[in-house]
Amino acid sequence: MFGLMQDQPLLISSLIEFAARHHGEAEVVSRRVEGDLHRCTYRDVAARSRQVAQALDAWDLAFSDRVATLAWNGYRHLELYFGVSGSGRVLHTLNPRLAADQVVWITNHAEDRVLCFDMTFLPLIKAIWKQCATVKHWVALCDEGALPADSGIEGLVSYEAWIAPQATQYEWPSFDERSAASLCYTSGTTGNPKGALYSHRSTVLHAYGGALPDALNLSARDSILPVVPMFHVNAWGLPYAAAMTGAKLVFPGAALDGKSVYDLIEGERVTMAAGVPTVWLGLLNHMAQGGLRFSTLSRTVIGGSACPPAMIRAFKDQYGVTVLHAWGMTEMSPLGTVCTLKLHQMAGTPEQQMTVLLKQGRAIFGVEMKIVDPEGQELPWDGQSSGDLMVKGPWIISSYFKGEGGNPLVDGWFPTGDVATIDPDGFMQITDRSKDVIKSGGEWISSIDVENIAVAHPAVAMAACIGVRHPKWDERPLLVVVKKPGSEVTREDLLSFYEGKVAKWQVPDDVAFVDAIPLGATGKMQKMKLREQFKDHMLPGV
Amino acid sequence: MFGLMQDQPLLISSLIEFAARHHGEAEVVSRRVEGDLHRCTYRDVAARSRQVAQALDAWDLAFSDRVATLAWNGYRHLELYFGVSGSGRVLHTLNPRLAADQVVWITNHAEDRVLCFDMTFLPLIKAIWKQCATVKHWVALCDEGALPADSGIEGLVSYEAWIAPQATQYEWPSFDERSAASLCYTSGTTGNPKGALYSHRSTVLHAYGGALPDALNLSARDSILPVVPMFHVNAWGLPYAAAMTGAKLVFPGAALDGKSVYDLIEGERVTMAAGVPTVWLGLLNHMAQGGLRFSTLSRTVIGGSACPPAMIRAFKDQYGVTVLHAWGMTEMSPLGTVCTLKLHQMAGTPEQQMTVLLKQGRAIFGVEMKIVDPEGQELPWDGQSSGDLMVKGPWIISSYFKGEGGNPLVDGWFPTGDVATIDPDGFMQITDRSKDVIKSGGEWISSIDVENIAVAHPAVAMAACIGVRHPKWDERPLLVVVKKPGSEVTREDLLSFYEGKVAKWQVPDDVAFVDAIPLGATGKMQKMKLREQFKDHMLPGV
Repeated sequence: MFGLMQDQPLLISSLIEFAARHHGEAEVVSRRVEGDLHRCTYRDVAARSRQVAQALDAWDLAFSDRVATLAWNGYRHLELYFGVSGSGRVLHTLNPRLAADQVVWITNHAEDRVLCFDMTFLPLIKAIWKQCATVKHWVALCDEGALPADSGIEGLVSYEAWIAPQATQYEWPSFDERSAASLCYTSGTTGNPKGALYSHRSTVLHAYGGALPDALNLSARDSILPVVPMFHVNAWGLPYAAAMTGAKLVFPGAALDGKSVYDLIEGERVTMAAGVPTVWLGLLNHMAQGGLRFSTLSRTVIGGSACPPAMIRAFKDQYGVTVLHAWGMTEMSPLGTVCTLKLHQMAGTPEQQMTVLLKQGRAIFGVEMKIVDPEGQELPWDGQSSGDLMVKGPWIISSYFKGEGGNPLVDGWFPTGDVATIDPDGFMQITDRSKDVIKSGGEWISSIDVENIAVAHPAVAMAACIGVRHPKWDERPLLVVVKKPGSEVTREDLLSFYEGKVAKWQVPDDVAFVDAIPLGATGKMQKMKLREQFKDHMLPGV
Repeated sequence: MFGLMQDQPLLISSLIEFAARHHGEAEVVSRRVEGDLHRCTYRDVAARSRQVAQALDAWDLAFSDRVATLAWNGYRHLELYFGVSGSGRVLHTLNPRLAADQVVWITNHAEDRVLCFDMTFLPLIKAIWKQCATVKHWVALCDEGALPADSGIEGLVSYEAWIAPQATQYEWPSFDERSAASLCYTSGTTGNPKGALYSHRSTVLHAYGGALPDALNLSARDSILPVVPMFHVNAWGLPYAAAMTGAKLVFPGAALDGKSVYDLIEGERVTMAAGVPTVWLGLLNHMAQGGLRFSTLSRTVIGGSACPPAMIRAFKDQYGVTVLHAWGMTEMSPLGTVCTLKLHQMAGTPEQQMTVLLKQGRAIFGVEMKIVDPEGQELPWDGQSSGDLMVKGPWIISSYFKGEGGNPLVDGWFPTGDVATIDPDGFMQITDRSKDVIKSGGEWISSIDVENIAVAHPAVAMAACIGVRHPKWDERPLLVVVKKPGSEVTREDLLSFYEGKVAKWQVPDDVAFVDAIPLGATGKMQKMKLREQFKDHMLPGV
């Protein structure tokens, strides 16, 4: 017997219509590529996303056709989020930090029909457009006046000219909530990129889960700055969750340096900001140099890679800003866990609480997790046993776009590739990526633990720990270090810095100083490249 | 094209399993009928709800069979919430405040197979059990030792003896999320009661929506006291939302007097309490008499009927407790709106903010609303135009159980029977029940407005405003008043109390003093009975 409740699909168009109707006055502020600040409201975004929908109708785009974006965070990108998915097409957010040939490969693989790009990327588009055979329409995210006459790109139109003829009223189509809504490729370190194809259902459920008090805690009293790019797992779902809750949205565009981010936070009275650790480094440096304070910022969500404890402490102790440590993956929409305290922990000392807050956090309802040993047996939640982290839930992928890589699930669980512990309170802590763990004899050494200690040293700007071959122990840790400008530190200084912090066998065998550590398209350290670079490194005493 | 996300139904069993796994240590505290405090955890509740599921299996209850409860708020009731629905049966919460013949009628209409009751209701069950033809099993919510040997009720077992043989491990069944999960009858003032049949999907979505920061704002740092009964629209969904967020649950059992509620709030460090205005009256009186304060309570959710402004102010000004004004209906699971401020209102004065907070609030994402004129035309959101309030969304009914009353929807919208205004910020304010509005000449007078002024008078304990026939104006308002014990006030005093507060034509024509105003099974004033009682009342000057 079915319940007798209204049969309303969970659709992305409902999010923007809700925002327009109930929070029509709430602002969407964007720093544009042009450098100026653009201000509009959810009411405007809704009207223009309806124009986008009808502009796509006018081009006869079919249901589920892919519309790609190559764009910074901004209001036009937001309008595409709702106009493309809301009208039944699939929003494909391309990562402009990828190499040109990768962008071409992904565009062809996705079979994009339309590609909308910020003017920043005009040179890239000029270079690749002929190789993107499926793309019939090129849209430059600018006014008609800003469009170059001689781009040479066939079928190029300006966004404003494209949508202008369309009505601002529109009846959004209704369809199965499991329909594809957006597509995001993972920047895997091996093999070709693989696409995660989100549905309307998964997106709306993820927005509910992400907005909860113990997740990102979003309300109509928030001013949210997604520094995390909209091309990176839909800015962690913030555009959807913000519309769901009526929060003000502040978009940084291409200006992600410390000063620009700080000025935007202060100028727009931002209460919550979200990004990867590397972005916050620039912000904290800028603030330290200028002796600056925050007036309104109360919390920052940090994810994308493990956040160094020193950064969590800096935000908290120096600026009174709570860092919400979060963890997720492209394959998870992306939110899996967020670290907030429980009732019984509220009575703990600040130090006890910090021990908890350094972990990746607790699962949001909608995400199930477990850790397993190499045989797939579940391991206890004792905070000690570490194993492969597996997840399942309605906003986690079942397979990749076009079935690439076959069935990624193991008995219905998605293997995250992370190694983690889970404590009795359900707080998960990533100890490493399974491929980055250093297997020394029968023991595992967490590369992240070794790195966190290194970056706490005042002379260290960045550090990566990788395993290199050892005749006796199979692998031993090598610490690769970038020094802070003007700072000096020796190999011996650094190694002695580990004394008393970890067991002796976990201390790196050697230190290599480098000018830079290669970063991937999402700002993560590319340890695979380092392993290649140091594959013949001779450890002392070998 | 479908998205490639995991196909996981939204099921009530997932809520308790999530709570057990991620918040296994969080407490569930219950004041029992026996008078003592019982303490257990979500881990215990999950284990025992799995026993309930298997005890129902052992009785060969079919999928969707109804299992009724006649019980106060407590841990055993909570176990039935999850065990009954989780195993695919339908939890039917009977309202023990109804007359015995109504309980019989509803039980037969619902075709309950099992009825579980608190020992408080043994006399009632003894009186009616023979008339409940469909009920095959009677379960007394007590230990085997507390079961009377001579009840005479065929097939009576104690809850503890019933579940004891079952294993605490269980594989919950998976099924279509649209399956019926629970059934709650409305205590309509006319006609037979009608059943709202909730689904697993509607219940889980409602829990997500209800836990949001701008709704009830529930987290794992909360200790929640649902004073609102679990037989009244599932205690506004709090048992589900608490499990979803890992909040501590505190159940008051049958002890709803001011002292008991206060002691429980203090003893269990309650942070959030929820109930109808009448319950809070007793609490506030108890506190005023004893000069008491709250140590941990930060907010109370008040709904079920419009909350008098004086009560909102008393909580805020005297006790520092934020009142969350909420509005909903049995047909809405029940949450529709909650009143929390928006960003741009945070800069307002306390008085400006209070003006907003006196309204019923903003819609939660998942609830759409509109107001319409008698012709069904949508009215503007100007805070002035009042019209019939219509709602739709995935946790709002499409029809009543067994199709009673035909299709209640109008073009897909559910007519709430409330008359309301909506302001430009989306804040809805109930001006009246459509049947309670006093139609004086061409103008409408809100009975609620008239009552709110009356109860602000220090001598008034309770007040109801009803329309009585008038030869010239069709209807004119009569104020029916219960005086506070030991207080005196005259008709003239009260009428002059309206001067300057409302327009002259909105002042009641007369006052009638009574000993008591009849209350319905959910604590609401039964104005229909008052209208009957005063139908021949002669207004002065007529």
